[in-house]
Amino acid sequence: MLNWVKRVVVGRPLRSDRLTEQSLPKRLALPVFASDPLSSVAYATQEILLVLAVGGTALMYLATPVAAAVVLLLAVVVVSYRQVVRAYPSGGGSYEVASRNLGRSAGLVVAAALLVDYVMTVAVSVAAGVDNIISAAPSLNPYRVAINVAFIAVLTAMNLRGVRESGKAFAIPTYLFITGLVVMIAVGVGRALFGTAPVAESASYHVRAEHAGLAGAALLFVTLRAFASGCTALTGVEAISNGVPAFKPPRSENAARTMAAMGLIAIGLFAGITGLALMTGVKVAENTCDLVGFTGNCATDPQRTVIAQLAASIFGGSDSIGFYVIQATTALILILAANTAFNGFPLLTSILAHDRYLPRQLHTRGDRLVFSNGILVLSLVAMLLIVAFDGSVTRLIQLYILGVFTSFTLSQAGMVRHWNRHLGVERDPRIRRQMHTSRIINALGAVMTGLVLVIVLATKFTHGAYLVVIAVPILYGLMRGIRRHYDRTARELEPEPGGMVLPARIHAVVPVSQLHRPTLRALAYARATRPDSLTAVTVAISAEEVRALQAEWTERDIPVPLLVLDSPYRDITGPLLDYIAELRQNRPRDVVVVYIPEYVVGHWWEHLLHNQSALRLKARLLFQPGVMVTSVPWQLESSRPAGPQPAPEVRVPAPAAAEAERAVQPPAEEQPAPV
Amino acid sequence: MLNWVKRVVVGRPLRSDRLTEQSLPKRLALPVFASDPLSSVAYATQEILLVLAVGGTALMYLATPVAAAVVLLLAVVVVSYRQVVRAYPSGGGSYEVASRNLGRSAGLVVAAALLVDYVMTVAVSVAAGVDNIISAAPSLNPYRVAINVAFIAVLTAMNLRGVRESGKAFAIPTYLFITGLVVMIAVGVGRALFGTAPVAESASYHVRAEHAGLAGAALLFVTLRAFASGCTALTGVEAISNGVPAFKPPRSENAARTMAAMGLIAIGLFAGITGLALMTGVKVAENTCDLVGFTGNCATDPQRTVIAQLAASIFGGSDSIGFYVIQATTALILILAANTAFNGFPLLTSILAHDRYLPRQLHTRGDRLVFSNGILVLSLVAMLLIVAFDGSVTRLIQLYILGVFTSFTLSQAGMVRHWNRHLGVERDPRIRRQMHTSRIINALGAVMTGLVLVIVLATKFTHGAYLVVIAVPILYGLMRGIRRHYDRTARELEPEPGGMVLPARIHAVVPVSQLHRPTLRALAYARATRPDSLTAVTVAISAEEVRALQAEWTERDIPVPLLVLDSPYRDITGPLLDYIAELRQNRPRDVVVVYIPEYVVGHWWEHLLHNQSALRLKARLLFQPGVMVTSVPWQLESSRPAGPQPAPEVRVPAPAAAEAERAVQPPAEEQPAPV
Repeated sequence: MLNWVKRVVVGRPLRSDRLTEQSLPKRLALPVFASDPLSSVAYATQEILLVLAVGGTALMYLATPVAAAVVLLLAVVVVSYRQVVRAYPSGGGSYEVASRNLGRSAGLVVAAALLVDYVMTVAVSVAAGVDNIISAAPSLNPYRVAINVAFIAVLTAMNLRGVRESGKAFAIPTYLFITGLVVMIAVGVGRALFGTAPVAESASYHVRAEHAGLAGAALLFVTLRAFASGCTALTGVEAISNGVPAFKPPRSENAARTMAAMGLIAIGLFAGITGLALMTGVKVAENTCDLVGFTGNCATDPQRTVIAQLAASIFGGSDSIGFYVIQATTALILILAANTAFNGFPLLTSILAHDRYLPRQLHTRGDRLVFSNGILVLSLVAMLLIVAFDGSVTRLIQLYILGVFTSFTLSQAGMVRHWNRHLGVERDPRIRRQMHTSRIINALGAVMTGLVLVIVLATKFTHGAYLVVIAVPILYGLMRGIRRHYDRTARELEPEPGGMVLPARIHAVVPVSQLHRPTLRALAYARATRPDSLTAVTVAISAEEVRALQAEWTERDIPVPLLVLDSPYRDITGPLLDYIAELRQNRPRDVVVVYIPEYVVGHWWEHLLHNQSALRLKARLLFQPGVMVTSVPWQLESSRPAGPQPAPEVRVPAPAAAEAERAVQPPAEEQPAPV
Repeated sequence: MLNWVKRVVVGRPLRSDRLTEQSLPKRLALPVFASDPLSSVAYATQEILLVLAVGGTALMYLATPVAAAVVLLLAVVVVSYRQVVRAYPSGGGSYEVASRNLGRSAGLVVAAALLVDYVMTVAVSVAAGVDNIISAAPSLNPYRVAINVAFIAVLTAMNLRGVRESGKAFAIPTYLFITGLVVMIAVGVGRALFGTAPVAESASYHVRAEHAGLAGAALLFVTLRAFASGCTALTGVEAISNGVPAFKPPRSENAARTMAAMGLIAIGLFAGITGLALMTGVKVAENTCDLVGFTGNCATDPQRTVIAQLAASIFGGSDSIGFYVIQATTALILILAANTAFNGFPLLTSILAHDRYLPRQLHTRGDRLVFSNGILVLSLVAMLLIVAFDGSVTRLIQLYILGVFTSFTLSQAGMVRHWNRHLGVERDPRIRRQMHTSRIINALGAVMTGLVLVIVLATKFTHGAYLVVIAVPILYGLMRGIRRHYDRTARELEPEPGGMVLPARIHAVVPVSQLHRPTLRALAYARATRPDSLTAVTVAISAEEVRALQAEWTERDIPVPLLVLDSPYRDITGPLLDYIAELRQNRPRDVVVVYIPEYVVGHWWEHLLHNQSALRLKARLLFQPGVMVTSVPWQLESSRPAGPQPAPEVRVPAPAAAEAERAVQPPAEEQPAPV
């Protein structure tokens, strides 16, 4: 049943040899890797305006310099990462760069930061996509969280299936999105120059200032916070650096060029949207009720996203085709952006699991050759975040980009070390000149992203970023702890030079409660292994039952001695454990094998009716050194598929002498041939 | 840790020989067995008045005839049960009487009805006790459910400890309760005759009728429902019939006399309280807001119980000592009444488990010689009921007494059969005359209780009794099903006359993933059992890892062939299962032993890092016929207590010939001497 559901959702398993490397031309690589950074222009402008709104309409003039700073930073980071792409064509990304150049600890910090940020990418992108859907269909507002969770579930299922045709599936919406926004910007600018300038539906609103008349340090703080929020436009820039092996050769060069193209498009779209927003007079506020003039119930009705307001004003209202196209492509690319985290997160966890920093299950490829466990972990944590933050983009975004900038800063710093090392051995003056330039670029990148990291931390800390400041060290500690555990275990299990170690003697013990067929089978199997001693043991709970058992034992002439253990406290496990410990006392080289008759049942509820003491005994025996536990299963009819069963055994008359155990020899058959 | 908590709550285990029969004189037996029927007078009157209140103050005149009918019924049932006590001195009670005389099915119906009623006894008695506590301390009202649950938890802990001094602990509160009520009735009657008659606080209230002006069939229905509610006074009457073996000899005669005393006291108290309630003009209503004149907030403030109102009016207000004494002893005896179910339920479930109608764990005596599992089941279900019904006595009582009257009716009918059977063989005319009388008494009892059963069913069905009508058949079916399962299993496991059956050949298989010490130990142990074939098997997930393993295998010169199984779908369990099935194909008399190296870890989280595939393999192997699974545990350091460990084994050089396996023989030692 469960298996059937799995097959429907995930599909049939794939053979390992289906695992092949893809090789993407630039025009397909751009949409695959750029959906994340490009999609963030859909909310970056809005987040800047939201922060400035705390000072009311008065601070809107700051949007232009803040956006300019974001554009500058974007350019610097893109140029810096072109260096990474060229220097590390293996696609290890920031984790590899930091680990190799700054050491294991820095690498793990980057890994922890990236893990947090992949989760945030899913949560923020899906939430923003749903936000744009709700802007087009406001009646869906009450189901916001459920729609978010449903999208994540669909993404999870798709990724568990391991969709291979991702290149083309990504290309169409991404290019549609770029085209749509370019057309919108062009029409908007055109109308402003040659006709009636478009006016946003919220242009006439007034924002009630939370803090009116900000000045001095407070004004600086708000400006920096607006900048920090605008920096969400930079998320996903490093995606290409993780995907270099997927490019067509010359891989590094193609990746670097794609990066440049992506940077230019992102800058153009972000600048265009911010310009349009200021021109059309869009107003937004964190709390809708702060918007004086808002039509509708500010407590329940949602605000439209900035993109939606622009599309409505430029294309002639919120029922025009242009509006719906922009909203649809925006929502689609945001969901695709979430999908990139579904590629990145499982890959990173599998690398970490391979390095033994995470449980090894994360390194196992599932039925469809993807790292299924990583996909499930990502999906689960993102869903929890969506539920915890009610699917609110503005609240989720406070936890975002802290990780991005941690990894930016550390990997750029690592690149500076990288060039230092190479400059120490390189002698060709032309290459040395290039390296000097690269080092300057990366140093600039490290300093700037480091500065932004400090700004983000300072301005967002109390708004939720502190959760990340807690989560990253915990993740770091966890990974360290797991590695330590695996290392200790590996040392403990390292075989010694001596080789195989044989026990001196083998004592077989068969616990018996009643004389039924499973017991007889366990006794027979135990005897067939010809142990040095074989004892059936029963624990006396009721004197009456013991007498009955002994009588039947004698009557059936069982050729194994039956030992009765006293149990004044009616405990079955304790006396057996004591007896077994006694067997090995002063004979540490001996081994005790305990044969436990065990029922195999077909229904879960049958477990309630059987096996209680057998399971307890097994669990306790595992902790005793020098003891093996053999389950001799007896398949009850309920556990077997319908149909006749072959007679499994040949019967031997019971009172056969111990020496004649194997009286019935099988006909000569060839042994199974081991390789 | 868990063990420590258990020891604190339950105490140290007791030796089996501490299990002795108690032998109670009548003056102690009365309180032990009569706390349940006597305590029910604390709420029976109130429930009659509550039902009559639906017709407003107008119907109060019906309380007298209804109470008289209850008294009559009580007398008949007590006389009937005196016959049971004399005829069945073994203490089997209604279950035994019905099973023996009416057959297994009737017995099981009685058992199911009694199980439901024991649970209801706990829920109703504790709820009524807490009700009386809240009548004395109304500020506790918001914590009603929590106080109920806490009392049940304390009763559970006490019964798990197996308090043996129950006789005296019961005597004091029971006699205090009886004395208190007798004094209250005497003072009340005395004041009415010779002074100012006491007036209840609610005497001036007016009850707003839910259905005003009832007449005809509707009036009859309400009267019958009031009667059905009053019949709660009969609960627990059968308790003495289950406890005959606990009496001092002559057991039957003493039990019958105690029963008569109990009946007289119950009748006296019930009649007295009902009379006082009518005399002082007590008014109650299911919904407090129907009480016109109620002082306080009718939505949140609780009504006082009838007992509390009587005590307050007779002893001079709700701050008099008399009031507190009555409330305290009433609460105490109600809690003790719940305690009697803690004796009856586990005893009944243990008898049913012994007869294989319930899981056998219910027949096991725990550390303190009580049937711990039955106690826990009772406690859990009662707590759930309290939570589900908000601890409301009136709502819980609708589910009560249906079971009691089912068991009354069937056991009295069984007694009629019993006398018929005995009359068929008895020849002595004097004894025959006695038997004739007894038969008439029991027939009368059966008819009357049967009639009441119909009345209870008809009048309470829609008020909650339907839940019992659903629960009893489900319990009945469950018990039948469990018995059928145990019977089928027993037939399946019945040893055939042939005796022990030895397998033809033994094939040992050791699954290997890496060559570490647990693997080497598993190989060594497997070899030491000298199987007919021994193969190490590895599943090829990664070609690289397999090559490394093969190289190490050769290098270490392991004297066991290593077979590599292909696994195109990266599944470890599947190929191993196929290989093992193949080994036994066409050789059904052979047995395969799979030696699985298994880590034993000290912390639960370590499980997440190890053993995943070993556990999955074990679970699947158990379903294959002819396969034994041997766990070769490797205790990781984390699982061991601190301190030096003895060297467990002697090393043998690896390339030793297979024939020289036991080169190192232990010094001659005596074998453990089996009995």
